[in-house]
Amino acid sequence: MSVVVRNIRRTDSAVAEGYAGIGVATVHEAQGRKGLLASYMRPIYRPCHIVGTAVTCEMAPGDNWMLHVAVEQCKKGDILVAAPTSPCQDGYFGELIATQLQTRGVLGLILEAGCRDVSELTKMQFPVWSKAVFSQGTVKETVGNVNIPIVCAGQLINPGDLIVADDDGVVVVRRKEAADVLRMSREREDKEAKSRQRYLKGELSLDVNNMRAKLAERGLNWLDNPPED
Amino acid sequence: MSVVVRNIRRTDSAVAEGYAGIGVATVHEAQGRKGLLASYMRPIYRPCHIVGTAVTCEMAPGDNWMLHVAVEQCKKGDILVAAPTSPCQDGYFGELIATQLQTRGVLGLILEAGCRDVSELTKMQFPVWSKAVFSQGTVKETVGNVNIPIVCAGQLINPGDLIVADDDGVVVVRRKEAADVLRMSREREDKEAKSRQRYLKGELSLDVNNMRAKLAERGLNWLDNPPED
Amino acid sequence: MSVVVRNIRRTDSAVAEGYAGIGVATVHEAQGRKGLLASYMRPIYRPCHIVGTAVTCEMAPGDNWMLHVAVEQCKKGDILVAAPTSPCQDGYFGELIATQLQTRGVLGLILEAGCRDVSELTKMQFPVWSKAVFSQGTVKETVGNVNIPIVCAGQLINPGDLIVADDDGVVVVRRKEAADVLRMSREREDKEAKSRQRYLKGELSLDVNNMRAKLAERGLNWLDNPPED
Amino acid sequence: MSVVVRNIRRTDSAVAEGYAGIGVATVHEAQGRKGLLASYMRPIYRPCHIVGTAVTCEMAPGDNWMLHVAVEQCKKGDILVAAPTSPCQDGYFGELIATQLQTRGVLGLILEAGCRDVSELTKMQFPVWSKAVFSQGTVKETVGNVNIPIVCAGQLINPGDLIVADDDGVVVVRRKEAADVLRMSREREDKEAKSRQRYLKGELSLDVNNMRAKLAERGLNWLDNPPED
Amino acid sequence: MSVVVRNIRRTDSAVAEGYAGIGVATVHEAQGRKGLLASYMRPIYRPCHIVGTAVTCEMAPGDNWMLHVAVEQCKKGDILVAAPTSPCQDGYFGELIATQLQTRGVLGLILEAGCRDVSELTKMQFPVWSKAVFSQGTVKETVGNVNIPIVCAGQLINPGDLIVADDDGVVVVRRKEAADVLRMSREREDKEAKSRQRYLKGELSLDVNNMRAKLAERGLNWLDNPPED
Amino acid sequence: MSVVVRNIRRTDSAVAEGYAGIGVATVHEAQGRKGLLASYMRPIYRPCHIVGTAVTCEMAPGDNWMLHVAVEQCKKGDILVAAPTSPCQDGYFGELIATQLQTRGVLGLILEAGCRDVSELTKMQFPVWSKAVFSQGTVKETVGNVNIPIVCAGQLINPGDLIVADDDGVVVVRRKEAADVLRMSREREDKEAKSRQRYLKGELSLDVNNMRAKLAERGLNWLDNPPED
Repeated sequence: MSVVVRNIRRTDSAVAEGYAGIGVATVHEAQGRKGLLASYMRPIYRPCHIVGTAVTCEMAPGDNWMLHVAVEQCKKGDILVAAPTSPCQDGYFGELIATQLQTRGVLGLILEAGCRDVSELTKMQFPVWSKAVFSQGTVKETVGNVNIPIVCAGQLINPGDLIVADDDGVVVVRRKEAADVLRMSREREDKEAKSRQRYLKGELSLDVNNMRAKLAERGLNWLDNPPED
Repeated sequence: MSVVVRNIRRTDSAVAEGYAGIGVATVHEAQGRKGLLASYMRPIYRPCHIVGTAVTCEMAPGDNWMLHVAVEQCKKGDILVAAPTSPCQDGYFGELIATQLQTRGVLGLILEAGCRDVSELTKMQFPVWSKAVFSQGTVKETVGNVNIPIVCAGQLINPGDLIVADDDGVVVVRRKEAADVLRMSREREDKEAKSRQRYLKGELSLDVNNMRAKLAERGLNWLDNPPED
Repeated sequence: MSVVVRNIRRTDSAVAEGYAGIGVATVHEAQGRKGLLASYMRPIYRPCHIVGTAVTCEMAPGDNWMLHVAVEQCKKGDILVAAPTSPCQDGYFGELIATQLQTRGVLGLILEAGCRDVSELTKMQFPVWSKAVFSQGTVKETVGNVNIPIVCAGQLINPGDLIVADDDGVVVVRRKEAADVLRMSREREDKEAKSRQRYLKGELSLDVNNMRAKLAERGLNWLDNPPED
Repeated sequence: MSVVVRNIRRTDSAVAEGYAGIGVATVHEAQGRKGLLASYMRPIYRPCHIVGTAVTCEMAPGDNWMLHVAVEQCKKGDILVAAPTSPCQDGYFGELIATQLQTRGVLGLILEAGCRDVSELTKMQFPVWSKAVFSQGTVKETVGNVNIPIVCAGQLINPGDLIVADDDGVVVVRRKEAADVLRMSREREDKEAKSRQRYLKGELSLDVNNMRAKLAERGLNWLDNPPED
Repeated sequence: MSVVVRNIRRTDSAVAEGYAGIGVATVHEAQGRKGLLASYMRPIYRPCHIVGTAVTCEMAPGDNWMLHVAVEQCKKGDILVAAPTSPCQDGYFGELIATQLQTRGVLGLILEAGCRDVSELTKMQFPVWSKAVFSQGTVKETVGNVNIPIVCAGQLINPGDLIVADDDGVVVVRRKEAADVLRMSREREDKEAKSRQRYLKGELSLDVNNMRAKLAERGLNWLDNPPED
Repeated sequence: MSVVVRNIRRTDSAVAEGYAGIGVATVHEAQGRKGLLASYMRPIYRPCHIVGTAVTCEMAPGDNWMLHVAVEQCKKGDILVAAPTSPCQDGYFGELIATQLQTRGVLGLILEAGCRDVSELTKMQFPVWSKAVFSQGTVKETVGNVNIPIVCAGQLINPGDLIVADDDGVVVVRRKEAADVLRMSREREDKEAKSRQRYLKGELSLDVNNMRAKLAERGLNWLDNPPED
């Protein structure tokens, strides 16, 4: 049975807004190095940086029908996350669906397939992270699912999870963990800001993080004289 | 026998000029979703958009000699389309051949191999769609063919066919179909412009294109209550 | 045994500075088409162009500890070249190590792995050539080596070798050959500048380089009449 | 927090045994074309065919420590399913862990990474489906998780789910759906056996499945005369 | 318009039978190093070796409907050659269509997509050269074309062309050139048999083919003393 | 300058013979997890296992001329190791050069390119580890080098180094380290044989290698009750 689940529970919008300015690498580290989508998910233009709540869409290969269905379930602050049930790089998405999404306040699209109209999407400033840029047309024959848990680019995405996407890629945060991860991300940012100041003055992470003793213990040696030529 | 065919029949220049401003995705759809080159053919800079007539060049792997030969067969409004006889990403093409082509009024290059001097080519605004950016040098030892039908990035390209290339990729239109495809592309653009206006006002493609009944008939269900956590 | 070799012999800085403005393709050709790193090594932003002396770093897969160690061995005019001992695209490098390197006058990083914080690195103008953009975090558990000969992206890199990197990719020049290759690169540039002037006037490389006789000898034929449709 | 969950609920063993002789393609179709792992998961030898219950293992990249931990949670009739948290093809698994597993009655391993000792594993007849054959050694430094839900080769795998693996690849069946899918798989096999008998007599699926009218309706035409040469 | 062309002209069967025992590499070389399909087309079992006439089939991505249509156009001595219109590795083909084809005397399948039931196909000894082994199911919604020229794995295939496929891969020979290529293949085989006899006695191709002078002329030097360690 | 170095120093033949029966994984681990060639180097048939001394060959892309030159430098107990100067999967090697090599007592070929005639090579039992099976013909136009240090599949190979190749892949051992690595490989084999005996009796590596305390210290927890469904 194919379903469209309406009225999903979303990550609290105040929490989502709190992530403004926090990047993918920071969030990924703060939540214990998990949730990162595969590296082949690249933004169609740069720079770009969005944070929002996931509406999920599972599609047949070469068939973008469910994207049209998913649009209706999206609202302001959402990010649409879509994946085919078998690997496909066809051009599922272009300017016309983007116009519908942007009109509804949707922030962007995470698409494990191909994207087209990238020139127009860049002008519209509607960001897409995709597996390929490819115009290959799709059909509208087979139904799929909206707002069920899906696997996209190697990660499980639940409807309502928080998505952070920037020039580095895409990371997912579980809805119930989003507030905690926000707090830890900010702590990490503060800590990194302090380290950065010391590094700008010429200090080394070797010293700032007390690595020398542990390195020696693991067997590292420093040699002063390279061999003769 | 290796040949260079001179005086090929080209797509009518008035028809080619009519394609100005029409993108790859539109043309591909308008002609029935055919003719699209593989997604690994990417432009070396963006934005870029050209339309012209194909001069074809078949080369030995790692050998760019025939590109030099092909230059002479190119004239104003042409696009050179080149492919090796076995997969190769060596740097067949750079600034010096580009200078010759641009001086003759050639609009760009479609190259199923590697391209180099991309910084200079960007400054010159001579666009190349290639499989890789790679400087690896080539030799000049083996002859090939110019202006015979070739397979480039998965598509058959005949000399004189119309080529459309933009940020989305590359599509080929048969010479004899180019006028018809132009008309259908314009019709498609008009139709899309109308849809876009409706989408900007908040209408959905689900309604504009009457999809709801067909979706239900294929088994799609809408559920209001997500399961409890 | 894991080692850090200090006080390596570097390519003479006057020689290195002489390469300013000379691109990867030219250097690669001038030294006999050798030394080019694999085409998957791409810059995180463009345009970019650096020339400097290699400090090498061999790391465990998924472990960026040795990058922290390598920083201390780098000085003004150096380029850090780092590779894992088995294929890995994890995000070994980001803004914090870049800050340390840039503060020391290091010009950039060649990394056969993943890079993160690419937005920040672009703002800092610290160029990185990497195999992927990927945030996946790494650990600090296993020691490796600094300033031993390493293989990076298919090429042997010795500490102190000269590295040239630009929009086209990365090439290595042996320390002892750097002065000779500089001279040959300049000669090549001069020769190309002359050819470019002739091409801008409409001359062809077919004639400038006397190719026609050799082409005919190898079996190339020119045909005037394409077959009928 | 890293965890090892003991005493997982497994698919009923009588149900699992019922799948004997039923292949991956049949199961995948019978459950509605879902659950298939990515095509890069290939068996190290052929023919091979196993059905069993999943014990899951999430590992750090380049670190096989958790495989040793997972062995203890496996029992007769299980299949170990293991994946790293970022892409890695290192050689996580060889003869020694296989010996432990086989001694416990474990049927095989699904490994989204590299496998080594394939010659010995073939002699032992311990089948492995892996992403690569690669000897690259791993470390034992970082803990992960056993028997939590994991994503392996693009599919969500829960502990206790049913795994079917053969020469065609690997498919997962949810524990609670395994009995139903078994029934539907058998129905499909019966239906296919009947079709096969008809095909062996020269009948065509075009007729057996009444496709001709629908094909014509969708626009297919039969032409008798090919164009002249 | 989608078409099925009946009654195609095929390579003469006596010529096709003459190729028995002649391998892909020989035919490819004999016809001037052309016609070789991409290296990702691999046989599902080895050894295998077939020669026959092409029936071509163009399919939608993820849709194997046209394979069923194509079966009817195949007869004894044919090889079915099928490719989707955009890249797809779904499992288009398995035991049931194979049974229909084998019953009609078809020799094998060349499929630029995924193949399933490879265990059963091996038992049946029905060889398939495919891009992947993958069970992913397909739909039957979109019509395509049978017996038009198609591009498969980088090569243009015309209906009726001769196909040679073995453990090394697949090569296509134009129908009108098949008799000439057969003659040249046999000459090549005779020549190679003579060389093989000389090599078995210890002679070198350097001498048998008089390469030494040309090598020296191109700049090769023999050095007797390796550098000291 | 292109050179052929004669009379290279080889790893002692008694040492090389001592490696008989020791596999790639063992040698790789015994020498500290280094020297392993990339995982895309796969044997053309299995099982296979050879140990010998490297003769190295650097070739132009698409040009196998230097293989013919290298044959003469090979003698009994050698393994030829060959790589092109830019990535290429053309079919550099087949039955005729294999006949010459086998007649001289050469044990096999490591080839970072394509191999053809794999059916004949299997019958001859001449093993090849290659990047691809591909018949694409090569030319004989450009000279390269024999018996200089080369990079093959990511590893530096010196002439005379020891090569071990089996079903798992290929590893290189430095000539001067070969005796030590042999001793360590044997020690490793002895240790593994003892572990295997314990595992066959049902003991676990967790206990045999005392991992439990370290696992707990790194934060691993065992939970007895899975969450309810």
